[in-house]
Amino acid sequence: MTDNKLKVIPLGGLEQIGMNITVFEYGESIVVVDCGLAFPEDDMLGIDLVIPDVTYLKENIDKVKGFVITHGHEDHIGSLPYILRDVNVPVYATKLTMGLIERKLEEKNLMRSTKRKVVRPGQTITLGEFKVEFIKTNHSIQDAVALAITSPAGTIVHTGDFKVDYTPVFGDAIDLQRFAEIGRKGVLALMCDSTNAERPGFTASEKTVGRTFDNIFAEHTDTRIIIATFASNVDRVQQIINSACKFGRKVVLEGRSMVNVISTAAELGYLNIPENTLVEQEQINDYPDEKMVLITTGSQGESMAALSRMAANMHKRVMIKPGDTVIFSSNPIPGNEKAVSRVINELSQKGANVIFQDAHVSGHACQEEIKLIYTLVRPRYAVPVHGEYRHLKAQASLAKSIGIPKENIFILRSGDVLELSKEHACVQGHVQTGGILVDGLGVGDVGNVVLRDRQHLAEDGIVVVAVTLGTGSGEIISGPEIVSRGFVYMKEAEDLMVEAGEEARFAIEDNYQGSTPDWNRIKNAIRDALGEFFWRRTKRKPMILPVIMDVDD
Amino acid sequence: MTDNKLKVIPLGGLEQIGMNITVFEYGESIVVVDCGLAFPEDDMLGIDLVIPDVTYLKENIDKVKGFVITHGHEDHIGSLPYILRDVNVPVYATKLTMGLIERKLEEKNLMRSTKRKVVRPGQTITLGEFKVEFIKTNHSIQDAVALAITSPAGTIVHTGDFKVDYTPVFGDAIDLQRFAEIGRKGVLALMCDSTNAERPGFTASEKTVGRTFDNIFAEHTDTRIIIATFASNVDRVQQIINSACKFGRKVVLEGRSMVNVISTAAELGYLNIPENTLVEQEQINDYPDEKMVLITTGSQGESMAALSRMAANMHKRVMIKPGDTVIFSSNPIPGNEKAVSRVINELSQKGANVIFQDAHVSGHACQEEIKLIYTLVRPRYAVPVHGEYRHLKAQASLAKSIGIPKENIFILRSGDVLELSKEHACVQGHVQTGGILVDGLGVGDVGNVVLRDRQHLAEDGIVVVAVTLGTGSGEIISGPEIVSRGFVYMKEAEDLMVEAGEEARFAIEDNYQGSTPDWNRIKNAIRDALGEFFWRRTKRKPMILPVIMDVDD
Repeated sequence: MTDNKLKVIPLGGLEQIGMNITVFEYGESIVVVDCGLAFPEDDMLGIDLVIPDVTYLKENIDKVKGFVITHGHEDHIGSLPYILRDVNVPVYATKLTMGLIERKLEEKNLMRSTKRKVVRPGQTITLGEFKVEFIKTNHSIQDAVALAITSPAGTIVHTGDFKVDYTPVFGDAIDLQRFAEIGRKGVLALMCDSTNAERPGFTASEKTVGRTFDNIFAEHTDTRIIIATFASNVDRVQQIINSACKFGRKVVLEGRSMVNVISTAAELGYLNIPENTLVEQEQINDYPDEKMVLITTGSQGESMAALSRMAANMHKRVMIKPGDTVIFSSNPIPGNEKAVSRVINELSQKGANVIFQDAHVSGHACQEEIKLIYTLVRPRYAVPVHGEYRHLKAQASLAKSIGIPKENIFILRSGDVLELSKEHACVQGHVQTGGILVDGLGVGDVGNVVLRDRQHLAEDGIVVVAVTLGTGSGEIISGPEIVSRGFVYMKEAEDLMVEAGEEARFAIEDNYQGSTPDWNRIKNAIRDALGEFFWRRTKRKPMILPVIMDVDD
Repeated sequence: MTDNKLKVIPLGGLEQIGMNITVFEYGESIVVVDCGLAFPEDDMLGIDLVIPDVTYLKENIDKVKGFVITHGHEDHIGSLPYILRDVNVPVYATKLTMGLIERKLEEKNLMRSTKRKVVRPGQTITLGEFKVEFIKTNHSIQDAVALAITSPAGTIVHTGDFKVDYTPVFGDAIDLQRFAEIGRKGVLALMCDSTNAERPGFTASEKTVGRTFDNIFAEHTDTRIIIATFASNVDRVQQIINSACKFGRKVVLEGRSMVNVISTAAELGYLNIPENTLVEQEQINDYPDEKMVLITTGSQGESMAALSRMAANMHKRVMIKPGDTVIFSSNPIPGNEKAVSRVINELSQKGANVIFQDAHVSGHACQEEIKLIYTLVRPRYAVPVHGEYRHLKAQASLAKSIGIPKENIFILRSGDVLELSKEHACVQGHVQTGGILVDGLGVGDVGNVVLRDRQHLAEDGIVVVAVTLGTGSGEIISGPEIVSRGFVYMKEAEDLMVEAGEEARFAIEDNYQGSTPDWNRIKNAIRDALGEFFWRRTKRKPMILPVIMDVDD
């Protein structure tokens, strides 16, 4: 009887922001929506990024018909270059989204091996037993789509990340009529963006930010203007360019991702840049300050981004001067507040006038927009997606408030298998999921043991105890040598280390039993003795690492 | 001519939140206002807290007449137990503030050696050539005072941390009349709290939170209520107790600092707890849930605090149950947003109903209050204090907006010596300042080298290369042994380590030149060879730590 059931299996994206990837399975067909990455949590020391565990896809590789991508943000496309190596199926996306995906594939030499198909909003594709329709939405990146995923068991509407913008900067407003039409025909389940589900009201139109820029430009005609924003927010950049033209300024782009994304968007026709507006970075000094706008990365206080380097006096070309007007066209993403504040302080100290109000709107739907979509789609079941648990729960409350019965609302965990039919829905089982850590070239070779060690090393450093033992004589031939890093400043703690050496020597001698010494026993004795010694003397717990070498004597 | 000048020297508290300590010097007299600590920045790995460098006080110890404390928060009193060891002068504070200081002194066995004098708001004390008057203010802890510090050169008003609360929960409103009187007589400089100087309007009265509690209690008569707040906010705890009594609930305190602060406050008469209201932690199960209120630490998501342990199912007595009402009576301090969100998610997942709106007000003055104080005090000079640079700058704008000339406004840096006379003020020189890191028992033994090593270890771990060399033969006697921690999981990277051992062997052999080997040269060769090797193979840069031992052979 599970044959005519539709399975929805999120492999990531719940209980966290980022790493969105969801499996839709019916019979012998699997469609995967999005393939994003997550940025590391604070306790994932040294990790570059996190990608999803797709064991379930690998085990069902024959069923997998393709990846369908909702939009071009990292948390929706960023894992593709990693996952496509093992799950090599076609990728379907709208034009700008595909342009951004292709940049990544080129970097990893995956263009030839990856089948790609550009789709238009409004188009429907067939993938095995599924039909997937792409529906125009609005978001903080262009070409975002919602999906209507139809199987014999019914239709699921997945909003992707979205907002309702009646007056978008580029292209059309979200296709609310189509949501209504599909809703009218009957929708089994709605999977809706929860990011802003705790926020009342409506998210303002992107156009309101353009008016703010005009006002700021009008008030600061005699200073340089530097604007930090998200590289992927092409409409935001367009509006800055519009204001620049209106006020007779040239525009320079700073930051690698800004240059990359904007040139992709411009090539594909998503940006309208009047001639002689954009100026090369090297020409920045050919124009007077009051004729320049810099659009830069670094709005999140990222330490290596262009704005942070300017603020820290570490940028090659741009030095912050008293009087510079610096605009943060962004809100800090949770966790980045302190870093952003640090950059604001540094800019202020250099005399810049920092503006961080009214120059940003969210790309996600607030409560009234979420209710609007529910009311148009009228789903039988609600499955809140995209957000931390608190956000999913907030959307569940909204769904309930507009009449979805409580038992028809499912807050899933990653890996849950939600089985849906026209009459029934329930979580049936769980598949393997998780985050795989990427550190440099290594994918998955840093796990909990390594992270725990990094945490320990970060807190209290390490003390290495090296000793050479004679296997024949049963004596210490050389050492013990004590070397520490990240524990105390050695020169100031020489006495402490001499004493530690003595402690180690006693521990070794007490536990060295002739020609067949038990090295583990000796190592444990060193660890115990020095651990206790350092705790007593410093109230710290450095990692103790004994290294024993043997010599025939 | 500097004899009749007043010097103001902040030794901390500027360019950062916390570690407030300011020197006032006239002739042979020094008065120190506050002696706070700072909590470590994100990059100060493993550090417990930061205390100010008071070299200037030690060098001028004969002049120092005493510490004058504005209120009992850690960022104003926390360094006293460390600094008093070297700068043993009397401490002056109001009753509750002194009670909290004495708790610290007792812990460090400093009660006998420290002269303490309790003062009342309204009282004036003489310290050398200074007269210091204590003026009642309002803040998020009781018994906060502003100071009017009078020297022959004039009067400086220092607000401490403050807000204007016309309807405080306990005691009187801020003594605005006295600010006005002192202002009328002429004030040289105002040093005013900048924390909320970016926020328009007025900070709401603490009493408004009491009304929110009453509403929440009225709406949740059938569930347990758990409220997280700052242990030091005694008025907040009082209001929770008031609501509990009104709605017939018993109160339990959870968290060490909550129990400590509240018992000090209760002993000293700052809390009114009706009989049979407070219940011991062990009795928590003797009452039905709907008759209980838990007041707990952990409102900032601190991982070891009581609420976080409850949320993570690690609390001894309290398990979160579906239906529990959990109130965050706090705002996240910048930097703690993610930790707080994590706890909210965990609580929600366990079925708790988490409330985090309207249950908190700030303890700091917003823009209209700051302008009020400026208007009452009418200082000649403005010296914004307490806040990051952006906050100081925001206050400078406010001061300018109400008529203080730009050249009379001083944004100082820690260590700046501001010289003031009736006719003139300017920064004259700079004294040594800085943060001294406290890690366990160590004060100042962790510096930049150790922190840099911890950062390196945290990012990529360590590879230890141990080798025993024969001083006579010029040969490798044993090793090289390769041991790593926090780099890769060893079992999965055995081949990599075998190859690394070979690389190390080549590096040693290439650089080993007989009976007088240059160990530094060998160590550098190992570092270079393995650094390059691991970067090539993993794109990571673990710390390479060569340990060479020698054996006569």
